[in-house]
Amino acid sequence: MDVFEAMRERRSVRRYADRPVEDTTLERVLEAARQAPSWANTQCWRFVVVRDPQTKQRIAEATPEGNPGRKALAQAPVVICACAQTGVSGFFNGKASTALGDWFLFDLGLAMSQLTLAAHALGLGTVHVGLIDTVKVGELLGLPADVKFVEAVPLGYPEKPSKPTPRKSPAELVKQERWS
Amino acid sequence: MDVFEAMRERRSVRRYADRPVEDTTLERVLEAARQAPSWANTQCWRFVVVRDPQTKQRIAEATPEGNPGRKALAQAPVVICACAQTGVSGFFNGKASTALGDWFLFDLGLAMSQLTLAAHALGLGTVHVGLIDTVKVGELLGLPADVKFVEAVPLGYPEKPSKPTPRKSPAELVKQERWS
Repeated sequence: MDVFEAMRERRSVRRYADRPVEDTTLERVLEAARQAPSWANTQCWRFVVVRDPQTKQRIAEATPEGNPGRKALAQAPVVICACAQTGVSGFFNGKASTALGDWFLFDLGLAMSQLTLAAHALGLGTVHVGLIDTVKVGELLGLPADVKFVEAVPLGYPEKPSKPTPRKSPAELVKQERWS
Repeated sequence: MDVFEAMRERRSVRRYADRPVEDTTLERVLEAARQAPSWANTQCWRFVVVRDPQTKQRIAEATPEGNPGRKALAQAPVVICACAQTGVSGFFNGKASTALGDWFLFDLGLAMSQLTLAAHALGLGTVHVGLIDTVKVGELLGLPADVKFVEAVPLGYPEKPSKPTPRKSPAELVKQERWS
């Protein structure tokens, strides 16, 4: 699929067909994330792939009731838990290099962008579920102290096409040379 | 360009040909960022497009001497300054919704991933320059108090092809069902 088409047509998908995700397809999706750039190529991202229905249900229960991502996490055949090794991205010689501190969220964004674009190109649907008790899911997954859970991304074949969501106009987002 | 090819072949590019970037090409690159998903579709990203040689030079001087991004920022025909409206992404009713606080770095990662993939597909080179005095550049650009400068991305036609950088193996990055 053309890269511009993938970016233009990718949607948040929260309902999935009753169809498993093939191992080779899942590998291609994870491979796309692996190829992302990162702070000094530190690659702080880590992925826990969950297929076990009980674990998926517990992850879903870590989201607020009424959150549209909740059912998606319980229903999807696969849930990818995006985690980050902390104290690496944005650091040099053990110290944060900028006023923004640990950059793991930025690098996770780069990787999860590639993962979700690849999924769309393979006919799969995803949604970023960040509104979730990250501490609880980290405990559930048995993450070590220096690894943080960031978001859960359900992955499955869409039940039906999703509608596009609006975006701010270019004039609202882009300035020339200086803010004002 | 195929989306998998774009992800596989995109490189960090730090030397640019003496060739301007057409306005319509720049618009396509920014359009790709605009289409990214974000926390509750809040779209906290803002872009300041810099072409003025003096401003580019000052941004370059906000990076440490010896940083390979420094020359790239001064030399590139365009520098895209990625900024974030704070207090929006990751928030609900004015409060941070998760233990990770403000999610602007994650959403900026999503947008800048799409921007750099689009640039590559159009024959342009980019590099993420995050090792930079973000406060100093924010002042230089005249950002308001609630908008933070995140990173600078030089944009131009590559002088020559870049070599790929290695990645950790899938086994180092991916775990099944649980961390351990």
